Amino acid sequence: MKKIFLSENDMPKSWYNIAADLPTAPNPPLHPGTHQPLGPDDLAPLFPMALIEQEMSQQREIPIPEPIQEGLKLYRPSPLIRATGLEKALKTPAKIYFKYEGVSPAGSHKPNTAIAQAYYNKQEGVKRLATETGAGQWGSSLALAGQMFGLEVKVYMVKISFTQKPYRRSMMQNWGAEIVASPSQDTEFGRKVLAEDPENTGSLGIAISEAIEDAAKRDDTKYSLGSVLNHVLLHQTIIGLEAKKQMEIAGDTPDIVIGCVGGGSNFAGLAFPYLRDKINGANIEFRAIEPAACPTLTRGKFAYDFGDTAQMTPLVSMYTLGHTFMPPGIHAGGLRYHGMSPLLSHVVKEGLVDPYAFHQVEVFDAAALFSRTEGIIPAPESAHAIKGAINAAIEAREAGEEKVILFNLSGHGHFDMSAYDAYYAKQLEDYVPTDDDLAKGISATAGLPGV
Amino acid sequence: MKKIFLSENDMPKSWYNIAADLPTAPNPPLHPGTHQPLGPDDLAPLFPMALIEQEMSQQREIPIPEPIQEGLKLYRPSPLIRATGLEKALKTPAKIYFKYEGVSPAGSHKPNTAIAQAYYNKQEGVKRLATETGAGQWGSSLALAGQMFGLEVKVYMVKISFTQKPYRRSMMQNWGAEIVASPSQDTEFGRKVLAEDPENTGSLGIAISEAIEDAAKRDDTKYSLGSVLNHVLLHQTIIGLEAKKQMEIAGDTPDIVIGCVGGGSNFAGLAFPYLRDKINGANIEFRAIEPAACPTLTRGKFAYDFGDTAQMTPLVSMYTLGHTFMPPGIHAGGLRYHGMSPLLSHVVKEGLVDPYAFHQVEVFDAAALFSRTEGIIPAPESAHAIKGAINAAIEAREAGEEKVILFNLSGHGHFDMSAYDAYYAKQLEDYVPTDDDLAKGISATAGLPGV
Repeated sequence: MKKIFLSENDMPKSWYNIAADLPTAPNPPLHPGTHQPLGPDDLAPLFPMALIEQEMSQQREIPIPEPIQEGLKLYRPSPLIRATGLEKALKTPAKIYFKYEGVSPAGSHKPNTAIAQAYYNKQEGVKRLATETGAGQWGSSLALAGQMFGLEVKVYMVKISFTQKPYRRSMMQNWGAEIVASPSQDTEFGRKVLAEDPENTGSLGIAISEAIEDAAKRDDTKYSLGSVLNHVLLHQTIIGLEAKKQMEIAGDTPDIVIGCVGGGSNFAGLAFPYLRDKINGANIEFRAIEPAACPTLTRGKFAYDFGDTAQMTPLVSMYTLGHTFMPPGIHAGGLRYHGMSPLLSHVVKEGLVDPYAFHQVEVFDAAALFSRTEGIIPAPESAHAIKGAINAAIEAREAGEEKVILFNLSGHGHFDMSAYDAYYAKQLEDYVPTDDDLAKGISATAGLPGV
Repeated sequence: MKKIFLSENDMPKSWYNIAADLPTAPNPPLHPGTHQPLGPDDLAPLFPMALIEQEMSQQREIPIPEPIQEGLKLYRPSPLIRATGLEKALKTPAKIYFKYEGVSPAGSHKPNTAIAQAYYNKQEGVKRLATETGAGQWGSSLALAGQMFGLEVKVYMVKISFTQKPYRRSMMQNWGAEIVASPSQDTEFGRKVLAEDPENTGSLGIAISEAIEDAAKRDDTKYSLGSVLNHVLLHQTIIGLEAKKQMEIAGDTPDIVIGCVGGGSNFAGLAFPYLRDKINGANIEFRAIEPAACPTLTRGKFAYDFGDTAQMTPLVSMYTLGHTFMPPGIHAGGLRYHGMSPLLSHVVKEGLVDPYAFHQVEVFDAAALFSRTEGIIPAPESAHAIKGAINAAIEAREAGEEKVILFNLSGHGHFDMSAYDAYYAKQLEDYVPTDDDLAKGISATAGLPGV
């Protein structure tokens, strides 16, 4: 392992907005009722105007306000690390670099956007943020950011995680957030779900609906989302912008850029600044890695669909398994999403980024090898990127090529040790949806506008 | 928060051995049978000769072998951070700096010595290391280090932790260690304990005895200890040596140096390089913080005593609560030790370091304030140092003095979230041993040689 640090003074001062450089324009988001392209006012009940402007901006460089820079310096710049131990174990001529986002207090890349979102909301007089969280990565990041700027944070946490994963809950509580198990009695939608099924253990779809309802109903409250949206991907580009400076220090440029994808933000954060180079003619390959259990990019449909199960969000143009698709209970909870960021979907559709899908057990094999050779125990989500990098390094070995591989290690696995327990006890299973499962999910997009 | 990084090239190339600078000589360790001063041969069954030499060395600077430097670069140099958020919350004119050791893969300072110990053992042809662990911090660090140098590691883990804290167990397994719940069937002593009490949930004393027996009985195996011994403290001085370089970059010198103490190694690691300056006339105050529940330095006796319950170790001159003392079950498991490093005991006895004791709840109050203002969730052990720093900062405020405070944040609390759960649920208790409890424990030193 060889670390390349960047000084705080060299932290990027602007984000990179790929919308300015796309060869073709993505399809616009549509109003769920009228099916007309969405205007800024349609989003105003949920987001502050600064974020709505970023969501729709075509400006290439968007300056990072000073207080956000200060907040990010809590843990940024994050290290770039050359995985010399892994290279050696693989006997590959490839050089493997990774950007390590697990250094943040919440343990992942999520605070990169949480801090920005909290700041812009505070600037516009918002007092309180509502959000959902599955296993708790995003909720704890927003709790941290709320603490930083003096905003109240209400987290609707999927009930099964609320019960089974108390540690992330304690973390959020530690950072002053109010947490409720979803479905909850705190919203009309939650009460409706509980009235129909008091034993409902929740889902991300239900939690999103509760958080949106909370924000829409209260004047002092806005809604906050941890992935998928353009402004979220924008905030994450600081990862790739730092990586470019650090790769320059290392004296290498990547041939292959790799990241795991759930909603798409950590992948885009690393990849988009490099994708700009590819659009301008550079020869770089991009690999987006998803779980075979939730194969949005590799087996989904490119279509207009809802971002949530309850059909409350705008319709967005993306790869989707259908908003009714229930992904199997793999340990990489952050990758269990039926849809995909519209921006990332667009560049996959355009052939700029190649999707790959891997199975749960082979991903944990990769995680175990990585933790033994590099010392860092990765989050199950991030381990998908590791598996992608290992495969690329083995291809390089077989081809006898000195490729430079760069991947995003989006978070550590300190709160996922029960998954490692299951892996070592050989209790992990590979889930693969059947064609029928997928067809049934995707059929939920029938009747929605075409792309 | 303001971070001061050091480049890998500026990582110290030697450790600092305080034995070379002590104004008075510490009492020598004694053979448990003969009560005569210990010679190198007495330790040879347990440790490789290089470590025994370091244990007894008077050489001021001991070079760090290149492969250990390489191993340490997995996470070192660790950041020095100015706690600007905490300063602001306390409205103190003091500057508060901390060295953050939670960046290691195991999450604490322990790998600093584990990597060194594994290397020296490997150099001398040792194939396997045996050790004990309570909650698992040390065991996971040695597992990591064993992995690094190709040594087998056998960890005797206190049974109650083995059962209740599965995550550290998975971490050790991940790094290839063999773990057994202690008391175990794997040693004579373990079988004896189990024969007498099949339900015995173990103790650190029993686990130490099992690991020592394992190492003593097998030619291919040595024993490894994570604190207390001179060579362990020596390896930890890299913390303070880095801190000195970083404080120079920051343009400050500490007036007060603070650390928590269990066996003494993280405190000594930060403090000893500065204690050298004090011995040479500098005006620096040193505060060693222990839990009021296990008040070794503040209420213990300075005496010869055994390092373990089963009386298998040499007799060492130290502050002790008696080798039969059972500390109450506080969450700062790493500080639950009846004795204290002989070197640290010596400098406390000489008046160079001042001991303080704090209660569990006030320590968690400090941890909560810190995590809200600095974003890092500290280990309960390290939170004692935070409480010490907060008190010093408040004193500075009351005296209107611009003191510079430096403390060691020895680890993060990601595997201690259940303790935070208990804290927020107001289920934490303050335990304070009665004078009778202490007198009973200390009476175990009666009949041993005097100091």
